[in-house]
Amino acid sequence: MKKVKIALLGLGNVGGGVYRILTEDKKSIIHREGIDCEVKYILVRDKNKKRDIEFPKEILTDSFDEIINDDEIEIVAEFMGGVTPAKEYILKSLKRGKSVVTANKEVIAKYWPDLNEVAKSNNVGLFFEPSVAGGIPVLKTLWGSMQANNIESIYGIINGTTNYILSRMTDEGKSYDDVLKDAQSLGFAEADPSSDVEGYDAMYKLSILSSLAFHAKVPVEYIYHEGITNISSEDIDYAKELGYVIKLLAIGKKQDHTLEVRVHPTMIKNAHPLASVSGAYNAVFIKGSAVGGLMLYGQGAGRMPTASAAVSDIISACNPANFYYTTFENTYNLPKDLIFQNNWECGYYIRIMVRDKPGVLSNIAGVFGKNDVSIASVIQTGRREDIVPLRIITHSAKEISVKKAIEDLKYSEGVIEIGSLIRVEDDI
Amino acid sequence: MKKVKIALLGLGNVGGGVYRILTEDKKSIIHREGIDCEVKYILVRDKNKKRDIEFPKEILTDSFDEIINDDEIEIVAEFMGGVTPAKEYILKSLKRGKSVVTANKEVIAKYWPDLNEVAKSNNVGLFFEPSVAGGIPVLKTLWGSMQANNIESIYGIINGTTNYILSRMTDEGKSYDDVLKDAQSLGFAEADPSSDVEGYDAMYKLSILSSLAFHAKVPVEYIYHEGITNISSEDIDYAKELGYVIKLLAIGKKQDHTLEVRVHPTMIKNAHPLASVSGAYNAVFIKGSAVGGLMLYGQGAGRMPTASAAVSDIISACNPANFYYTTFENTYNLPKDLIFQNNWECGYYIRIMVRDKPGVLSNIAGVFGKNDVSIASVIQTGRREDIVPLRIITHSAKEISVKKAIEDLKYSEGVIEIGSLIRVEDDI
Repeated sequence: MKKVKIALLGLGNVGGGVYRILTEDKKSIIHREGIDCEVKYILVRDKNKKRDIEFPKEILTDSFDEIINDDEIEIVAEFMGGVTPAKEYILKSLKRGKSVVTANKEVIAKYWPDLNEVAKSNNVGLFFEPSVAGGIPVLKTLWGSMQANNIESIYGIINGTTNYILSRMTDEGKSYDDVLKDAQSLGFAEADPSSDVEGYDAMYKLSILSSLAFHAKVPVEYIYHEGITNISSEDIDYAKELGYVIKLLAIGKKQDHTLEVRVHPTMIKNAHPLASVSGAYNAVFIKGSAVGGLMLYGQGAGRMPTASAAVSDIISACNPANFYYTTFENTYNLPKDLIFQNNWECGYYIRIMVRDKPGVLSNIAGVFGKNDVSIASVIQTGRREDIVPLRIITHSAKEISVKKAIEDLKYSEGVIEIGSLIRVEDDI
Repeated sequence: MKKVKIALLGLGNVGGGVYRILTEDKKSIIHREGIDCEVKYILVRDKNKKRDIEFPKEILTDSFDEIINDDEIEIVAEFMGGVTPAKEYILKSLKRGKSVVTANKEVIAKYWPDLNEVAKSNNVGLFFEPSVAGGIPVLKTLWGSMQANNIESIYGIINGTTNYILSRMTDEGKSYDDVLKDAQSLGFAEADPSSDVEGYDAMYKLSILSSLAFHAKVPVEYIYHEGITNISSEDIDYAKELGYVIKLLAIGKKQDHTLEVRVHPTMIKNAHPLASVSGAYNAVFIKGSAVGGLMLYGQGAGRMPTASAAVSDIISACNPANFYYTTFENTYNLPKDLIFQNNWECGYYIRIMVRDKPGVLSNIAGVFGKNDVSIASVIQTGRREDIVPLRIITHSAKEISVKKAIEDLKYSEGVIEIGSLIRVEDDI
């Protein structure tokens, strides 16, 4: 049996879960894995704060130096969140020859190539499965089970809050604002929900996922992102009628040397397995050259699911053979021979408020045609009133052409307002 | 870069796919993994048979001895199928210090503990991801990503043929016989489909899955199995009305020292992610103590998906650090301290053909009551005729009690025939 001493940085939601598993399931882990993980330190800001778990008081410390200077510590597991001081602690640990496990998506998304290098040159491991999609082992699947594949695309529902909101809007026909308020009171959304609903959280995770999948560092700044705040129950209903659901998807695609990475609300077909991922669940659908479509589904957040991924990483980190360093084909600041495509192709759903009079439709169709956007269907619903919604679905079209058409439409006769634009992915 | 020489046993569907990936994607694999896998031999029965792939003729051999006696060969990858001579070749390879990758579910299900020991004592690896659920990396997820969990249950759709047949029966309202014929002509079912439709194939795979998940050797003979040949479109329609679909599920559950392992048609709720796994797709839903529900979905058969899993295993087998030996808590023939439960509890759907006259229902209800089976709902449909179907759903009940009730019913007044009995799993 191998004995390993570890330090936890942070004793919040995830840190607490990790401590619970490592102590309560100690015997099973020793039996199954032959490894005895002892938590020697837990770094906290306030040693006297009341906690929701039991532990011997003496393992608490408010000094990171105590941890870093203890040569017995082989693994540092970071669950503090945020860049400062987490990044510094991670870096210092790696440099002192300690392997690191972290759930910190922001640090990994922003500094992975640097950290990867430091880990490699110090012969220690850097593990971050819990940083993406909580308990779902999607990173390990990408590097440990899909080596025979060139990854072609990734479609992820990787933010629980937005999926919860969209699912309830879809199931109950409620408005975004109503569901958000409810989600906040139930703890499914933060008081300031912008990181989730504006797509930032998914953007960090997509950066990590696509960097790993495509062996190319994908800087956060190269990812297009758009949140769900403009999604109306009207659009959700219309999508339903057409056999679609609306999901906030994180999409990564690679073709030759061209990458496209984007987070936005997306209409996907009802029958696709991603469509039935509802509530706070997450899922990642990966297309590989050999395996075809592969989907992983599970709890993308929460204490114990995230701790499950963290403890798996801690156990992996006990064996140097498991240290994995990715090969980036580009560097952080300078993507070499790699084009980040912002003129991607997909279908588009566009809702336009128009004046209900002759000639308007022909006008609008003309604008799309002029911009090389071909219309698949047009439906005008609602009673005959002065102003009516026109709903258009395009065939596969270029993003820039559609954006140009939308600009042109704003000045077209009879167009009152562009109500919404939702991308449609039919070929997942 | 590491150079590894390997031998393939068999050049059929899977073997051919493995050869294609290892040659066509050689450069990418060297670049990403730092490993150059050279196929030095391919063992075939007939060297002159026409093949559907290109390769240098001189690597074909019909002599296993040539392979086993070549010390350059580090990995033997077996894709012949069947027990004889595959098992012997696997055993010989392990004993000669060669790691083995195999897609052979029958050999692994029957002889894993022995092979595990031989591999361990010879310091070589034994890998068999492609033996269960084709391209879906469910075995590696169980041992490599769920170490923090006590696995509580597994629910698998792990036979593509039966899922294809049930999906089409559900979508098109056709009978079992009609869809089977069609599936055979389309290549989705064998000319002799019994291994699939009777549940044998799923039984082997469940033996492997549950042995790994529960760290206990689960002999094939301990698995209850029942196929889909008795499923009628009538039952499928009725399930639909109630918000259920019928799937052939492979179920494994562990509670303390009690295991239950069974393969049978099962009614599951429409909204469960397993319900939308249709056609030839496979999925495994795993419940872990920390992670909660986790589902893996993908192609469970076919040349390239299965080859994807096999090549991943081959790459893993190149590094001794990846050799994984499971800890069985029992031996093969003598489960110690482990009870295989055959009196499991679940819901039951029972269709009974009865004479439509007063007193019959009260009679039947009495039989269930006497056997401690509580009825959740009874529906009698169809026009008033002499003989009508009675459809009963029970609350959670014991298998043996239900079977006893069914026996008693056969001799009850007014009962013509027990039409069907389908188990219902509501708590997945």
